[in-house]
Amino acid sequence: MNEFELIAQLSGSLPSNSQVLAGTGDDCAVLDSGQPGRALLLKTDAVVEGIHFSPQTEPERIGHKALARCLSDVAAMAGRPIAAVVTLGLPKNFDPEFIKKVYAGMNALARRHGVAIAGGETTSNPERLLMSVAVLGEVARNKCVLRTGAHGGDALFVTGELGGSQAGKHLDFEPRLAEARWLAAHFAIHSMIDLSDGLAGDLRHLLEGGGLGAELLSRAIPISRAARLRAKAETSAKAPLLAALTDGEDYELLFTVASREATRLRDAWAGQFSKVRLSCIGRITGEPGLKMRDEKGVGPLQADGYVHFA
Amino acid sequence: MNEFELIAQLSGSLPSNSQVLAGTGDDCAVLDSGQPGRALLLKTDAVVEGIHFSPQTEPERIGHKALARCLSDVAAMAGRPIAAVVTLGLPKNFDPEFIKKVYAGMNALARRHGVAIAGGETTSNPERLLMSVAVLGEVARNKCVLRTGAHGGDALFVTGELGGSQAGKHLDFEPRLAEARWLAAHFAIHSMIDLSDGLAGDLRHLLEGGGLGAELLSRAIPISRAARLRAKAETSAKAPLLAALTDGEDYELLFTVASREATRLRDAWAGQFSKVRLSCIGRITGEPGLKMRDEKGVGPLQADGYVHFA
Repeated sequence: MNEFELIAQLSGSLPSNSQVLAGTGDDCAVLDSGQPGRALLLKTDAVVEGIHFSPQTEPERIGHKALARCLSDVAAMAGRPIAAVVTLGLPKNFDPEFIKKVYAGMNALARRHGVAIAGGETTSNPERLLMSVAVLGEVARNKCVLRTGAHGGDALFVTGELGGSQAGKHLDFEPRLAEARWLAAHFAIHSMIDLSDGLAGDLRHLLEGGGLGAELLSRAIPISRAARLRAKAETSAKAPLLAALTDGEDYELLFTVASREATRLRDAWAGQFSKVRLSCIGRITGEPGLKMRDEKGVGPLQADGYVHFA
Repeated sequence: MNEFELIAQLSGSLPSNSQVLAGTGDDCAVLDSGQPGRALLLKTDAVVEGIHFSPQTEPERIGHKALARCLSDVAAMAGRPIAAVVTLGLPKNFDPEFIKKVYAGMNALARRHGVAIAGGETTSNPERLLMSVAVLGEVARNKCVLRTGAHGGDALFVTGELGGSQAGKHLDFEPRLAEARWLAAHFAIHSMIDLSDGLAGDLRHLLEGGGLGAELLSRAIPISRAARLRAKAETSAKAPLLAALTDGEDYELLFTVASREATRLRDAWAGQFSKVRLSCIGRITGEPGLKMRDEKGVGPLQADGYVHFA
């Protein structure tokens, strides 16, 4: 049994109650706050030395990433983060000055987004630094965007540029909180997710359970400069398009909206967020499966990012 | 710099916002929910293999303890837990069946208290199992009990029995959720904390910043059978009273109430919770410092539990 099969088994029998509006399976849990028209969001995530950052990573970037991952999940629901609490697993012989810089990085991000760091615990985790963050957020119930909700025919959009995030972006990305709330405030966003596993993988999550598919337009995928540079510099590196489809940790927003809204949305976005690219990369289809269209035609897109043209 | 000095330094400069009613320094963070008369509680805590449980600990008890520690903190505010989210750090070569039993133990406790397990993340933590839990709770604002709030002259109460929890109770304790809510519903509880560091240490937290002290009555301290048995069995073990004062992880409630309420409270408790002992162990004094009274007189009680009679 691998980790994903284990998660599926664990998720099958979790206790719930009447306050849970959406539990596992979305970017955040959505909870009834008892306040009409509002909902609470709850999310936890961790970063671990040697897994999510290296022993050489600057401490400020570790703290930034630990909080930013959770904030990106709040963004994916079009929510507003309120407060975070932190569990810090300290290695043997930790350097207090290093830990203070980890916190400085987290605190700076929290301040930019008005998030309180409202508590924490420290424990020993002898072999490596571990930082687990839990974030509480809120959202207007009729503006909360779930992963499920895509319709056949929807236009598929993605913010920013994709691929090559291991060159640095995975440590420095700014969660798309303002962008997501603006989107939900001005458009009927049908479904949204933040990209953590890579476009090809996360798009599958958007389509799960709905009997839907998607057709991507190859030349519309926004490929990052980092992915292009890497492909040039290393012969063994992924081709840029493949990197954009399959590299993890882009932390951009992937969302769908009725196709008749697509042009108005793109124009309004350009007026609002001139520094953040927005790309319409394809559409949702009524039949299951991912496909890619390029100048050669249309072919199925595999989970590993490869396209097999007939 | 040790861990406690580090925490003090980190806590000094955390971002806050207008929704934080109480941040670090209490059992839970208390947050304004936007709902008149209500507040939200947020808490995170972790258990780590080799620190909070051993490689031989039964998996169900690991899951139980991980959630129970957070629920005990919600109890200490007289709150009601709503939902928990879990970060699981999985060691290399973890056994999926073992992890399913960890979850079974957590889920059973959650069900007993109506708590939803609303989401989680797994990550790798190669050398040891780590489980970080975050709990969201709620409380009526005028029933929320903080650590601060003790008055000079208050009667000091503790639930259950103290000491020797390492014999097993630290893995099996039932958080005093119903007891705490009943207390706050029927009495003006001035201050409350759950005992994690030991009575002598946690009592100091209740008194912090208030310029207050406390006088304990030696023969009123409820000493557990486990502490007595251990003192008999092992010549190197702590004396039972010392164990009751200084052993950690009792997870009982320590609280104060106006002395004129003490008798009515004790009588009402006996009618409500016949199986859980309640002891009035002393009183809050108007001058700083902890003292212990026994048949020999009154002497200062040190942080390490020793009493020095003049």
